[in-house]
Amino acid sequence: MRVNGQPYRTVWMQGTTVKMINQPLIPHTFEIVDLIDHRETAQAIQTMIVRGAGAIGATAGYGMAQVVLEAPEDSGFEAYIEQGAETMRDTRPTAQDLFYAIERVLGVVAKAGSVAQARQSAVALAEKMADENAAACQAIGRNGAPLLKDGARVLTHCNAGWLAFVDWGSALAPVYQASREGKSVFVFADETRPRSQGSRLTAWELAGEGIEHAIIADNAAGHLMRTGEIDLVIVGADRIAANGDVANKIGTYEKAVCAKENGIPFYVAAPRSTIDAGCPNGEAIPIEERSQDEVLYAYGRDEAGVFSRVRLAPQGSPARNPAFDVTPNRYIAGVITQYGVHKPSELPLDK
Amino acid sequence: MRVNGQPYRTVWMQGTTVKMINQPLIPHTFEIVDLIDHRETAQAIQTMIVRGAGAIGATAGYGMAQVVLEAPEDSGFEAYIEQGAETMRDTRPTAQDLFYAIERVLGVVAKAGSVAQARQSAVALAEKMADENAAACQAIGRNGAPLLKDGARVLTHCNAGWLAFVDWGSALAPVYQASREGKSVFVFADETRPRSQGSRLTAWELAGEGIEHAIIADNAAGHLMRTGEIDLVIVGADRIAANGDVANKIGTYEKAVCAKENGIPFYVAAPRSTIDAGCPNGEAIPIEERSQDEVLYAYGRDEAGVFSRVRLAPQGSPARNPAFDVTPNRYIAGVITQYGVHKPSELPLDK
Repeated sequence: MRVNGQPYRTVWMQGTTVKMINQPLIPHTFEIVDLIDHRETAQAIQTMIVRGAGAIGATAGYGMAQVVLEAPEDSGFEAYIEQGAETMRDTRPTAQDLFYAIERVLGVVAKAGSVAQARQSAVALAEKMADENAAACQAIGRNGAPLLKDGARVLTHCNAGWLAFVDWGSALAPVYQASREGKSVFVFADETRPRSQGSRLTAWELAGEGIEHAIIADNAAGHLMRTGEIDLVIVGADRIAANGDVANKIGTYEKAVCAKENGIPFYVAAPRSTIDAGCPNGEAIPIEERSQDEVLYAYGRDEAGVFSRVRLAPQGSPARNPAFDVTPNRYIAGVITQYGVHKPSELPLDK
Repeated sequence: MRVNGQPYRTVWMQGTTVKMINQPLIPHTFEIVDLIDHRETAQAIQTMIVRGAGAIGATAGYGMAQVVLEAPEDSGFEAYIEQGAETMRDTRPTAQDLFYAIERVLGVVAKAGSVAQARQSAVALAEKMADENAAACQAIGRNGAPLLKDGARVLTHCNAGWLAFVDWGSALAPVYQASREGKSVFVFADETRPRSQGSRLTAWELAGEGIEHAIIADNAAGHLMRTGEIDLVIVGADRIAANGDVANKIGTYEKAVCAKENGIPFYVAAPRSTIDAGCPNGEAIPIEERSQDEVLYAYGRDEAGVFSRVRLAPQGSPARNPAFDVTPNRYIAGVITQYGVHKPSELPLDK
């Protein structure tokens, strides 16, 4: 998608260097980071220079390609690759896409007849995985765009845009596609406390693509639904259970309940890889509670231009910080994947 | 209520000086401001050193008492009082309690037989109005406390505590009363973006009274309701229409909808003066849109201890900031006033 009029992906490879957008600096500074070996790439995943399941998976693929390119041609080749894979695995403990990408690269390396072939195959596969991710998201866009009429006013929660994937994103892909088809679309971006990823990332993405938008406090979404200012809701997902229950950023459930109460369709957009066919329902999805400090402080850029945090609460007052919630399938009008728009009870589990 | 173990009111008078808690510094600094004449008192209302309908009304009463004490005994007496009343009226344009308090003081002054009697009556009335406000809130506490079982887990939104009145508060009065009756009560305080009055003010009040609590992002309320961690909701009100529709801080509607969806009783607590018998329903209540900056920035204390704001959004991205919303009467289990707990369809309009 576009940044200052130029097309970008979240992460890509140039020669032996992995390049990525430095996401913690968004929206205040746009900077590309050069990662010259797999150790730097692993560290970038670990320190969340890149975040979002799709983007992490692609980065892990590129990092593994670096491992294979760096490995000595002698008898140390296999040991170096095993060690490199271990370094990549140690970056984030629960990102399914990360482990999947590492195993796929190890697979083509094992089958290669020579070191040269292994190197060529690893790089080609890393590029292919990034392309697959972008293509899946673009297909989500094409499948979701017909849901948006010209002049549609969309609410989205948190950031399920292209920064969380390689390109296009999930919840925002239908918006980008509809806009490129010439439709006028207006997006309300929930701020999404405590991490403000809606105001920081979604608003920045939308500005880059020239999509009209307004940031709102999370508290304002229900009011705007009730007063007729929102036509539909599209959110992303962290995990979708086999029965169509959806785990996503905290607050998603409130928006879904208010949407149902006001007769507004509520859609979830995600690639097939987000659907966990082995997970029967939302009650089986564990909800992570994160640091209290995310609630007790706000993080942004101060008047002097310095990244800083301010405390919003009394010293000594505790906070509770569930990071995700579960939206039961009965609130969901449809799940948009690269295969189509599915009823929650008819997910493409066999694909 | 208690601050560091000592009982305080939000505002009071000592000799000819009005004293009040400096609310913009809460929760980080506790400071009492001395206002030595009515001009300083008017300025304190205008600059929101004091806020909240009940507290503003009491402050206006004390400020008018200062006007009467300051007025010259000669022929300039009446002109000085009229000019002082005008200064007090010019502080906040829409606060009903403010105009009511000013008119009441003007009324006793007009009836007084001498300057000395006018002074005595004005001070006595100002004290009486503050006491009435505190007594109404205490009665709300007594009427609401039976709704809280021992061990109750209460959600409240924004700050409808004693800082918004003279003492006790509205939504928090039943909590304070139940606690003093020996019940264990736990309060979830919504952060209440954009102004963070829940995390800043409600949490600070609760800590002072020794009430167990946790601050949560506004997004987390629905999740905690769905997972069975909240027994009831009590909020305040900015205006209650004759049919029981309630205007209150933005986000109240979302909490009410989620409460209904989860079978959790949702109460509104307010003194009778908040009920506008002349307003037929919520649609007749105008919703103020406030400055975008409240959404685009967060305000708090930085690591160096300085009050500061940080920007949460891209430069150039706009925000929408409706400050209040309307909760239709069908979501409300009861309205708690100083006269009892009423169904929304049975408000004490004749009192």
